[in-house]
Amino acid sequence: MNLIVLMTDFGDRDGYPGIMKGVIWSLAPQAQIADLTHQIGPQDITAGALTLGRAWSYYPAGTVFVGVVDPGVGTRRRPLAGRIGERFFVGPDNGLASLPLQAAAAGQLEIEWVVLDRPEFWLPHPSSSFHGRDIFAPVAAHLVNGVSLAELGTPIPDPVRLALPQPRATAAGWLAPIIHVDHFGNLATGLGRDQLGDREVTLRIGTTELPLVQTFGERPPGSLIAMIDSSGCLAVCVVNGSAAQHLQARVGDIIEVQYKKAPSKPG
Amino acid sequence: MNLIVLMTDFGDRDGYPGIMKGVIWSLAPQAQIADLTHQIGPQDITAGALTLGRAWSYYPAGTVFVGVVDPGVGTRRRPLAGRIGERFFVGPDNGLASLPLQAAAAGQLEIEWVVLDRPEFWLPHPSSSFHGRDIFAPVAAHLVNGVSLAELGTPIPDPVRLALPQPRATAAGWLAPIIHVDHFGNLATGLGRDQLGDREVTLRIGTTELPLVQTFGERPPGSLIAMIDSSGCLAVCVVNGSAAQHLQARVGDIIEVQYKKAPSKPG
Amino acid sequence: MNLIVLMTDFGDRDGYPGIMKGVIWSLAPQAQIADLTHQIGPQDITAGALTLGRAWSYYPAGTVFVGVVDPGVGTRRRPLAGRIGERFFVGPDNGLASLPLQAAAAGQLEIEWVVLDRPEFWLPHPSSSFHGRDIFAPVAAHLVNGVSLAELGTPIPDPVRLALPQPRATAAGWLAPIIHVDHFGNLATGLGRDQLGDREVTLRIGTTELPLVQTFGERPPGSLIAMIDSSGCLAVCVVNGSAAQHLQARVGDIIEVQYKKAPSKPG
Repeated sequence: MNLIVLMTDFGDRDGYPGIMKGVIWSLAPQAQIADLTHQIGPQDITAGALTLGRAWSYYPAGTVFVGVVDPGVGTRRRPLAGRIGERFFVGPDNGLASLPLQAAAAGQLEIEWVVLDRPEFWLPHPSSSFHGRDIFAPVAAHLVNGVSLAELGTPIPDPVRLALPQPRATAAGWLAPIIHVDHFGNLATGLGRDQLGDREVTLRIGTTELPLVQTFGERPPGSLIAMIDSSGCLAVCVVNGSAAQHLQARVGDIIEVQYKKAPSKPG
Repeated sequence: MNLIVLMTDFGDRDGYPGIMKGVIWSLAPQAQIADLTHQIGPQDITAGALTLGRAWSYYPAGTVFVGVVDPGVGTRRRPLAGRIGERFFVGPDNGLASLPLQAAAAGQLEIEWVVLDRPEFWLPHPSSSFHGRDIFAPVAAHLVNGVSLAELGTPIPDPVRLALPQPRATAAGWLAPIIHVDHFGNLATGLGRDQLGDREVTLRIGTTELPLVQTFGERPPGSLIAMIDSSGCLAVCVVNGSAAQHLQARVGDIIEVQYKKAPSKPG
Repeated sequence: MNLIVLMTDFGDRDGYPGIMKGVIWSLAPQAQIADLTHQIGPQDITAGALTLGRAWSYYPAGTVFVGVVDPGVGTRRRPLAGRIGERFFVGPDNGLASLPLQAAAAGQLEIEWVVLDRPEFWLPHPSSSFHGRDIFAPVAAHLVNGVSLAELGTPIPDPVRLALPQPRATAAGWLAPIIHVDHFGNLATGLGRDQLGDREVTLRIGTTELPLVQTFGERPPGSLIAMIDSSGCLAVCVVNGSAAQHLQARVGDIIEVQYKKAPSKPG
């Protein structure tokens, strides 16, 4: 497999991801390169971690993910490469791979992680502001060329993990923060289908009650709904519309889940 | 040929098209994947159909187009795959392939169309909101792997066709609705070169008269012009500028074509 | 090598770059195609030249760059293809390759340039408004198929070169115009590390003084700084923020560099 997947906050205007591709193909002409997205908000590591977290497991074994959302470029933050199960990750040590790391812990995937401290695998004279080009792209190319992690750097046990916003259990149910607003204006939470369970619930955002449905098709266009989305978590949507716009909602706002009481048995 | 072309309304921020690529490469590592665009307006099937209609015939035989603009995801709308001549189409049954279907009718291309009803060719446990990932991407991968349409589903005769906005002939000429406003602000109609013919015409949008020219180069920058565009249809443009901005025009506005009278012969 | 890199001002909404890819793959199915960017400002040749200028040297020998920012399409401006050292360039004769040409002059790279006047290497019946599809994409495909420049057109000695905005030496230092504002709001100039030298300087934009630092990491987030950027030139940035927003700065604004006087020796 020769697949390299790029995710950055570089935007699509300046050609920075294209420069990384040039560097990769100069070292590994056989590489197949895909863009996950270059529209992560500037310096928004959490959004990068969530986006990578939703995508990585759909890629084949051997894929090398290069994630560059790097507010710490030019500081002492470490440049890393790692393996989680059969997939590889390259980027700054700031938690972009937190969700694969969490999956590794849950699923007993093997992990192996190194700090990139062998400049012979980088471009000569790396800049202090574009490690995507000077360090991470060449390292990804060397990985698809078969260079081992052990050759690329020194083993470390402790890549940074983000404390991603988690749903919080309450006496009556859950408080689930919105963790992502997508292109359609859908509001995603991290509250999984299993956590929610089968019990009847009342759902609210602010004072607005939200019907929980199985699919968009159950309600007419324009309806505000809650459903389990394609990542298996609770989300709030407007059928063929934007829940973000409808509710003026944003990341951090809370979806409240209240389990309905079982009817008290007659004495 | 191993070419798969993706067109969606998923945007470029969330990595959804990247997830589809991961699914495709997991099943068909040899696939070459291109993005036509992921910036079709949310749920704008007509814009998707026009964009696919302008592009498909430039791709080589064997190309598989996956078009996912899918307001009906999770309803009873059918998931389809089809062949028009030597090219393949995968997506919801909502008319995205209307223009290739129209070309097939006009050009006597063979068509073959199936409803995707064999879940063994999908991802397991498909979601109700991301069939691009769970049904259409894997089906496209199976197509480039050589699985036949007949294996993927049950033949149907009647994929949905959109009634795309058509120019209307009048006693004096044509009323041609604007069907697309592009990135440059050019205003496209569906009135073809052959329909317009060779006769002298007066062109108007609202009360503004439009000179009909052969090329941008005939007028200085900033000039409002009409011309036959690269799709062979009448369009309104501003040389090195935006006709949409200049005219505050939008899809649905009418370009009026009036044939000039032949001078009456002297009695 | 079969690598073709596209750079245009076509945007990402309408599928125009995708149409070019279809044309290329129809002629050269083995081509590997990458997007440098399609978000060059409409008709902004200077931005295109700078973006191509930053990227081209990172690509391997044999790469074919197709640059289409083409306000003159449909006029008498010439369609060109050229070779600079071991890389190829295809596009309108308007200066998009000015920086590689400048590098060629400085580095004694061989250049070879032809006007594209052999329609047998184009699509039949080229339009007057989409030479990217009808002339430049097919010519790029023929180049990766091994057709020589001499077959594609007639040699010319004089491709257009832009007079790109240059820093101007003053009695006291430099006046360096901002030549590009990137996605992060960083303000780039063309004043190179060597031109700036090692002497102590005072830097100003308007009345605002700018500290010159080595890396982002030296200052806290939100700080306005000047540094040598990843292209080796002076740039103004806000650490984890946008200098363009902070300063309301734009292309053409001047960064003033004043060398500090050496302290006068005591008599």
